[in-house]
This record gives sequence, structure tokens and C-alpha cells, in this order.
Amino acid sequence: MANSTALPLVLLAEQFAKLPGIGMKSAQRLAYHVMSMTEEEVQAFADALINARSNVKCCSECQNLTESELCAICSDDLRDHSTICVVESPKDIAAFERTNEYKGVYHVLHGLISPLDGITPDKIRIKELLSRIGRNDTKEVIMATNPTVEGEATAMYISKLLKPLGVKVTRLAFGLPIGGTLEYADEVTLFKALENRSEI
Amino acid sequence: MANSTALPLVLLAEQFAKLPGIGMKSAQRLAYHVMSMTEEEVQAFADALINARSNVKCCSECQNLTESELCAICSDDLRDHSTICVVESPKDIAAFERTNEYKGVYHVLHGLISPLDGITPDKIRIKELLSRIGRNDTKEVIMATNPTVEGEATAMYISKLLKPLGVKVTRLAFGLPIGGTLEYADEVTLFKALENRSEI
Repeated sequence: MANSTALPLVLLAEQFAKLPGIGMKSAQRLAYHVMSMTEEEVQAFADALINARSNVKCCSECQNLTESELCAICSDDLRDHSTICVVESPKDIAAFERTNEYKGVYHVLHGLISPLDGITPDKIRIKELLSRIGRNDTKEVIMATNPTVEGEATAMYISKLLKPLGVKVTRLAFGLPIGGTLEYADEVTLFKALENRSEI
Repeated sequence: MANSTALPLVLLAEQFAKLPGIGMKSAQRLAYHVMSMTEEEVQAFADALINARSNVKCCSECQNLTESELCAICSDDLRDHSTICVVESPKDIAAFERTNEYKGVYHVLHGLISPLDGITPDKIRIKELLSRIGRNDTKEVIMATNPTVEGEATAMYISKLLKPLGVKVTRLAFGLPIGGTLEYADEVTLFKALENRSEI
């Protein structure tokens, strides 16, 4: 912002610009918007920020974000604790929960193996997954990382660690998205859809 | 977010979603991002919010946002205080300042007349502009509201109020934007460009 702008507004815009997907222009717009909010609304926003950061921690079992020691899913006896769905981040859990179909539990890795970015297997929550499988009677581990290079590599790495333990390791199916059209499907997706075709 | 998500995170996402241009999906992503920030970073963000809202007020002269009684522009003796550029919002001042060409002062209306939205002339800072012109030796008032229906109506309304006071009232020029092409210019812009053509 030009130096015609009040300093606290410039500083606030810089804070907004640090957030992912918000450029300097949007950040300025948001900073000006804050000026049109009431003091109470701004206080509520600031409190929500601090409250979320300080009161939310990782579930001791599945590493999902939670307020208590165990998350709502891990402490639910109606869920199938012998099936663990391994995801990259907590927001992936919300996606699975929206399907209303999955009844097992989860394990959040908080990242994917990516040696080029300095993320080695010890930087993500793999040892927590192994110790969990050692403690419990796990029947199946579903690798639900994204179908990217890092996602595939992480799924392969973990499945190699788990196979000797006698645990069934599965991977999500890849194919055409429902509602998608052949015309817009990329070659790899189409190849996967062809390869994994099933009899009707 | 699904009820698998910790409540403080849901509340934070709701706060983000109240900001303009941020939908529920982006708001959730931002809330998860806050969890990856350090406690100090989150505290700095919250402080910036409260600090901006409580320490920034309107300049008593031009209604621009400032930390002090008079803004940096109004308290600058090198500026031409007899020329007032009337804009809709404080961010328009930043745009004019970036040109490095305008040496006069500003007046921020904090809105445009829009009877359908309940914004009547008394809801925006028109009386502050009139009292300012009464107090000072104003030579020219430049109406720099946006070329929208509301912007044009506001410019016309204010110019009718100012004319009896013997003040010269001007309007920004409309025409082709520099770097634009005829092909993509809309009819109204092209008509304005033709109407206001100048000899070369």
C-alpha cells in the first residue's frame, strides 16, 4: 500500500497476505473490510484465531485435529477400529466423512514423503501409524493419499513397511470421476479406468 | 465442516467465511493453515486485527483512514490544499497516490448514493465535504467516483450542490484504457473515447 495508508492497516494487510491463496491486492481489500466491521466482530475474529491455535491439538491415536485427548472418531465405539484409512491431512477426513459410507477410523500423516522438499519419512506421522498397528488388532490399512507423485510414493513406502506385519494394505480405486466425461479425462486417468475395468 | 472437525476450527472457518470473496471451502483451508502457523504468528495476526480496528480512525479533514487526527496527506504543507479529489473509499486514494502525479488533497465519501440499498446522501460524507469547502479556499473539486450508475449519480448530485458555491467541479476523463485494445472495449467506453477525442 502507498504510504498514504495508516500503518496498522498496512501491517494487517501483510498478515492477510501471508495466508495461502491471498495476494497483496486481496489482502488490502480484506484489511479495509476489517475497518467496516464492529469492534466486537473484530474481537470475535481475533479470539477465534487464538482459540483455534491454542486449544486444538493432534489426537493421540489418529493424529487428527481435536480439542480432547482422543478425537470424536477414535473415541466412537461404533466405528470399526480394525480398518484404518491413511490420509495426508485432517481436511481429507472431512471429505471421507461427507460420503457417510466409511465406518472405519483414520490416520493423518500430516504431509507426504517428498525428499526434494526435505520431507523424509521420519518427518511425517508414520511411526505413530506403525505403533498403532502394533498395539491394536488391525485388519486393513487403506492408503488414501492423493494420486500425485508424492502421494503414490508415500503409499508405496508405507505399504512396504506394513506387508511384513501381515496387515492387508489397499489403495483407493482410480478411474473416471462420476459426472465427468471421457472427452475431458486425461490419458493417465483413462488408462487407469481401462486397466481397472470391471464386469457388469 | 463435518462434525469430525474440532469445534474451534469450525468457528474459525466461519469467521474467515464472513470476509468478502472467501467462500466456505477457502475458509476451511485457511482455518487449517492457521493450525500450521506458530503460536507467535497467530498472536501477531490477532494483534494486527485488533490494532488496526482500534487505532485507525477517519481523518477529521478528508475522512481518509489514519492513526492521527489529520492524515499524512492533509497535514502535508507541500500538497495543494485548494484542489480536492472526491473518491468513494480510502483504497481509491492509494490508487491515485501510485500515479505520483496528483498533488492535491482528497475527500473520502465512504460510499456512493444508492437509494435502492438505502444509502441516501446523508449516509455518506457529503456534509463534511461541504463544510470543508466552506472553511477553505477551494478552487477545484475533482469527482473521482467510479464510472458506475451509483458513481455517476453521486458525482452529479455533489456537483449540483457545489456549483452555487462558485467552485469549479470536474470529472475524471473516460476513454480507452492505456494498453487496451479497441476489440475488447465495450460500446459505452468507445463512445466516450470518440466523444472526448482530442486533436493531435
